[in-house]
Amino acid sequence: SKYTYVRDFEREERLLPSTWLVVRIDGQGFTGFTSKHEFTKPNDIRALHLMNRAAKVVMESMVEIVLAYGESDEYSFVFSKKAKAYDRRASKLTTLLVSKFTAAYVFYWREFFPATPLQFPPAFDGRVVAYPSDRIMRDYLCWRQADCHINNMYNTCFWLLVNQGGLSQRDAEKRLNGTLSRDKHELLFSEFGVNYNNEQEIFKKGSVLVREQVPIDLVDKDGNSVQRQKMVVQIQHCDIIGDAFWREHPEILGEKA
Amino acid sequence: SKYTYVRDFEREERLLPSTWLVVRIDGQGFTGFTSKHEFTKPNDIRALHLMNRAAKVVMESMVEIVLAYGESDEYSFVFSKKAKAYDRRASKLTTLLVSKFTAAYVFYWREFFPATPLQFPPAFDGRVVAYPSDRIMRDYLCWRQADCHINNMYNTCFWLLVNQGGLSQRDAEKRLNGTLSRDKHELLFSEFGVNYNNEQEIFKKGSVLVREQVPIDLVDKDGNSVQRQKMVVQIQHCDIIGDAFWREHPEILGEKA
Amino acid sequence: SKYTYVRDFEREERLLPSTWLVVRIDGQGFTGFTSKHEFTKPNDIRALHLMNRAAKVVMESMVEIVLAYGESDEYSFVFSKKAKAYDRRASKLTTLLVSKFTAAYVFYWREFFPATPLQFPPAFDGRVVAYPSDRIMRDYLCWRQADCHINNMYNTCFWLLVNQGGLSQRDAEKRLNGTLSRDKHELLFSEFGVNYNNEQEIFKKGSVLVREQVPIDLVDKDGNSVQRQKMVVQIQHCDIIGDAFWREHPEILGEKA
Amino acid sequence: SKYTYVRDFEREERLLPSTWLVVRIDGQGFTGFTSKHEFTKPNDIRALHLMNRAAKVVMESMVEIVLAYGESDEYSFVFSKKAKAYDRRASKLTTLLVSKFTAAYVFYWREFFPATPLQFPPAFDGRVVAYPSDRIMRDYLCWRQADCHINNMYNTCFWLLVNQGGLSQRDAEKRLNGTLSRDKHELLFSEFGVNYNNEQEIFKKGSVLVREQVPIDLVDKDGNSVQRQKMVVQIQHCDIIGDAFWREHPEILGEKA
Ligand SMILES: Nc1nc2c(ncn2[C@H]2C[C@H](O)[C@@H](COP(=O)(O)OP(=O)(O)OP(=O)(O)O)O2)c(=O)[nH]1
Ligand SMILES: Nc1nc2c(ncn2[C@H]2C[C@H](O)[C@@H](COP(=O)(O)OP(=O)(O)OP(=O)(O)O)O2)c(=O)[nH]1
Ligand SMILES: Nc1nc2c(ncn2[C@H]2C[C@H](O)[C@@H](COP(=O)(O)OP(=O)(O)OP(=O)(O)O)O2)c(=O)[nH]1
Ligand SMILES: Nc1nc2c(ncn2[C@H]2C[C@H](O)[C@@H](COP(=O)(O)OP(=O)(O)OP(=O)(O)O)O2)c(=O)[nH]1
Ligand SMILES: O=P(O)(O)OP(=O)(O)OP(=O)(O)O
Ligand SMILES: O=P(O)(O)OP(=O)(O)OP(=O)(O)O
Ligand SMILES: O=P(O)(O)OP(=O)(O)OP(=O)(O)O
Ligand SMILES: O=P(O)(O)OP(=O)(O)OP(=O)(O)O
Ligand SMILES: [Mg+2]
Ligand SMILES: [Mg+2]
Ligand SMILES: [Mg+2]
Ligand SMILES: [Mg+2]
Ligand SMILES: [Mg+2]
Ligand SMILES: [Mg+2]
Ligand SMILES: [Mg+2]
Ligand SMILES: [Mg+2]
Ligand SMILES: [Mg+2]
Ligand SMILES: [Mg+2]
Ligand SMILES: [Mg+2]
Ligand SMILES: [Mg+2]
Repeated sequence: SKYTYVRDFEREERLLPSTWLVVRIDGQGFTGFTSKHEFTKPNDIRALHLMNRAAKVVMESMVEIVLAYGESDEYSFVFSKKAKAYDRRASKLTTLLVSKFTAAYVFYWREFFPATPLQFPPAFDGRVVAYPSDRIMRDYLCWRQADCHINNMYNTCFWLLVNQGGLSQRDAEKRLNGTLSRDKHELLFSEFGVNYNNEQEIFKKGSVLVREQVPIDLVDKDGNSVQRQKMVVQIQHCDIIGDAFWREHPEILGEKA
Repeated sequence: SKYTYVRDFEREERLLPSTWLVVRIDGQGFTGFTSKHEFTKPNDIRALHLMNRAAKVVMESMVEIVLAYGESDEYSFVFSKKAKAYDRRASKLTTLLVSKFTAAYVFYWREFFPATPLQFPPAFDGRVVAYPSDRIMRDYLCWRQADCHINNMYNTCFWLLVNQGGLSQRDAEKRLNGTLSRDKHELLFSEFGVNYNNEQEIFKKGSVLVREQVPIDLVDKDGNSVQRQKMVVQIQHCDIIGDAFWREHPEILGEKA
Repeated sequence: SKYTYVRDFEREERLLPSTWLVVRIDGQGFTGFTSKHEFTKPNDIRALHLMNRAAKVVMESMVEIVLAYGESDEYSFVFSKKAKAYDRRASKLTTLLVSKFTAAYVFYWREFFPATPLQFPPAFDGRVVAYPSDRIMRDYLCWRQADCHINNMYNTCFWLLVNQGGLSQRDAEKRLNGTLSRDKHELLFSEFGVNYNNEQEIFKKGSVLVREQVPIDLVDKDGNSVQRQKMVVQIQHCDIIGDAFWREHPEILGEKA
Repeated sequence: SKYTYVRDFEREERLLPSTWLVVRIDGQGFTGFTSKHEFTKPNDIRALHLMNRAAKVVMESMVEIVLAYGESDEYSFVFSKKAKAYDRRASKLTTLLVSKFTAAYVFYWREFFPATPLQFPPAFDGRVVAYPSDRIMRDYLCWRQADCHINNMYNTCFWLLVNQGGLSQRDAEKRLNGTLSRDKHELLFSEFGVNYNNEQEIFKKGSVLVREQVPIDLVDKDGNSVQRQKMVVQIQHCDIIGDAFWREHPEILGEKA
């Protein structure tokens, strides 16, 4: 038609081939959303499990995602260097991923918050970044996991000082100002008898989704029970900064097992 | 930290200032989604109202949207030429809008489909396009409304031929192949006694959301009832191709009323 | 061949259709270049004429340029909103234009500096900017012409203070610090008897290249002398901030004369 | 000033960090330029040396270029993965490089073509491509050197058939149509007694510029002659497809020697 010329104004950025693509999404205004829905502080385990559930939906629907990492109100999805989905068009990748995640988050809300009705629809932003080397992509994940660690240690101290220590939020903040990691360890132990190392791994490390072969039992056409391997998305709460994780999962970086 | 250098890899495209920004979203694989959820054919009024509900949520949360237009599984949102939201960053605008829309679609599903449980979370893609002039932005909307008209007329004929005319889908397709608009008008009238002009406006024209001043009744601090003006999002199913609509809404193009 | 996959890494930005495209080029390190080649201060008329000569070569080779504006070591070329050259690919437009300009600058150097051998090849950078409306494109040109005016007035004062007033460069700078336009007019007149308005237009206004119809005399095949119209690039040193220039050249903005 | 808002319309693409940046330039319309200036066919050694001279100027002025490769009317410049020049802004890199090259080409023309005046200024286009891995960057160079080889072998046959074989250009083309590399070797040898392997390396392999340490003799302040190392740009005509070259120049890929 005489109007189709308007399509010429569409600009599409295909992301550089042979680079790792990382889509990071983050809850919009979750400071307010978590308070309105009375999330427990500093970590609401129901909320984390809901985030993981939504991330699993995304990962199952986009097969080129090789790893996902979540903490707080954010999730990062790592696409294979070879990913070809949507011709690597930036807006397709980000909007579809954010949309799937959001839909699943609302869809499964009731399973994880049966006693807390969702009061209004939440939203997530999304962005995609290309990383040219394995090392830099791994450093990206280190950045997020270190962020998780630092925030969680701070928040653990903060809310203990407020809830058990009787400090005002302002005083708790002052008390923690300038403290190093070992000061916080010490504070937790000496003042609250808490050994930070014993905190739940999901709080300290965040959540790591990878694909793994698992054996499944099937019945073949002759009625015999047989075992097959199936790829399923598995959740872990392990360290991804060191080399051990990557040695155990050589397939993520595309090396032969 | 030593990892923050990874942020340097983020690239952000700020969209050209002083241009109309149009975000169009479109349901992913809605051919399957609508069939799975047994949408009525060719138009499911519940589905259209749900789309409009979700679009209203978006428009109420992003105040620089001056008009939205929806049809089928898609919606277009027109941001003012002067829009400054998120510094006009493309990925922020598209992902947040798509996320809000999707969340609202799932959130309100039950209101519009009380008897049809949502079987799996749907998803929408999104893109943003900059249009440099009023005329071209209007031509964009003409393109979408003409698309609505052409598809609706075709689908109306097609499903009458199949459901009432007893044709197979293949034969219905053949029958319509090569027909012009007036042939379809004629077919509808002579074979099924249907005057296309009497079809529902929402099917023929799609849905137009604009902001309008409406009077609201308030009680002031002295207990007197007073009237105030409030901006609310209104839904219409009117022609936006001709000049009349734009004359009636001079504020959209930024002209004084 | 097995290597051609490397072409997939090329990314090309086609500039938004229906926008004015302005390519601005600027001499690299001309502070040094002009001093090395002993340009007269503050303005070297030979240098300005050489810049204009090179700009003319560019404009004659790229027919979609509707106007060019030059001052100091820079030149701006305005492409029609409808320009289609090189599919509006940013890198083609900028590199070819910069290359043509540079080649012409070196090629014609001897004509304008017969007594000053070029000591080393100069270079120009280039960038392209899309402007969505006539008003904004005109404001771009205003920005450059205002820059010319301000710099020229400052430099005229500065070098008179130094060369005729016997001030050191540092003292001349101090003397001018904080002065307004009218202070400078006053200074020129009272201290050096110079009426700024009588300075050369090319210094005060820069150079404007436009295409104009000029009558040319030809001899037709029967040997009769006939007159024809021909489009040629003309140089002016006029104001392009006010409306007069644009009224006299309605064809630039695409209006009928 | 009130006009400076126009700078907000500038968009700048910083190229992805930690990737190889390759700027390729190519003569515009050199089919015509070479014919107008009567370049010898198929290869004009003066023209190749002039290209190399201009490339050397570029490489000496942009220190992050680690290698350059030229053939025919084109040159590719490889910037280190770590290059920071101009903040990796695409338009600065391409336009300045193209401008320097063009200026040098015109500037040095007379040295290489003393008997052939330059009739009009030539131009080169330029583009920049980011390559994420060493392998892909090397494949890029393989692509160009293979192109050189294929074209040169074809052109060598073609012009011998025309100039010595007495064929028309059309017949020479037909004769070569569908021939493989070894057919061409055979043709050269059996029909013209030419052993292709003995052709000049600069024709067969193109030109490779790298930086190398060379000893230079200096006189120190006490009048003693001393030897120092200096980095200079060296020209070679060697194979860069195989591994040998890269083993001999480990510093190019950033490995310790
Ligand atoms: N109580 C509670 N709050 C949480 C939990 N997870 C995340 N949050 C809150 C803490 C932060 O206020 C917020 C996440 O920080 P952000 O930097 O993403 O800020 P926010 O989402 O408010 O703003 P944004 O729109 O992302 O800029 O969510 C949780 O498990 N429990
Ligand atoms: N039955 C029914 N189907 C509808 C209605 N609205 C939209 N659809 C269907 C018709 C089309 O198959 C589909 C929309 O066409 P699209 O071109 O967007 O295709 P689809 O979403 O399948 O693929 P895509 O992922 O967008 O490329 O949705 C409705 O009201 N009733
Ligand atoms: N003497 C003299 N100098 C001039 C003339 N035209 C321009 N220049 C000098 C004055 C400035 O130092 C320089 C232009 O200023 P720019 O801001 O472009 O600086 P420059 O080219 O040095 O650095 P850049 O590489 O552009 O950042 O050229 C002239 O006619 N005579
Ligand atoms: N006689 C002669 N011609 C040469 C020599 N080197 C390059 N050429 C010519 C052969 C080709 O016609 C032309 C290079 O091919 P291109 O594909 O770059 O074509 P051209 O520059 O004409 O068009 P373009 O503007 O790059 O699309 O230059 C030479 O040493 N001797
Ligand atoms: O922490 P991020 O990644 O969300 O970064 P930010 O500082 O919040 O900035 P933005 O979301 O605006 O990119
Ligand atoms: O109809 P659209 O706009 O979705 O366009 P398309 O032809 O489906 O293409 P794509 O969604 O891949 O841009
Ligand atoms: O004056 P310009 O346009 O050259 O702008 P600048 O401040 O010199 O900056 P750059 O040349 O780095 O864009
Ligand atoms: O051979 P190239 O790289 O110049 O590629 P092309 O096919 O000539 O195309 P263009 O110069 O238009 O990118
Ligand atoms: Mg953020
Ligand atoms: Mg958040
Ligand atoms: Mg967050
Ligand atoms: Mg589509
Ligand atoms: Mg769809
Ligand atoms: Mg659709
Ligand atoms: Mg500059
Ligand atoms: Mg300069
Ligand atoms: Mg300048
Ligand atoms: Mg080319
Ligand atoms: Mg060429
Ligand atoms: Mg070439």
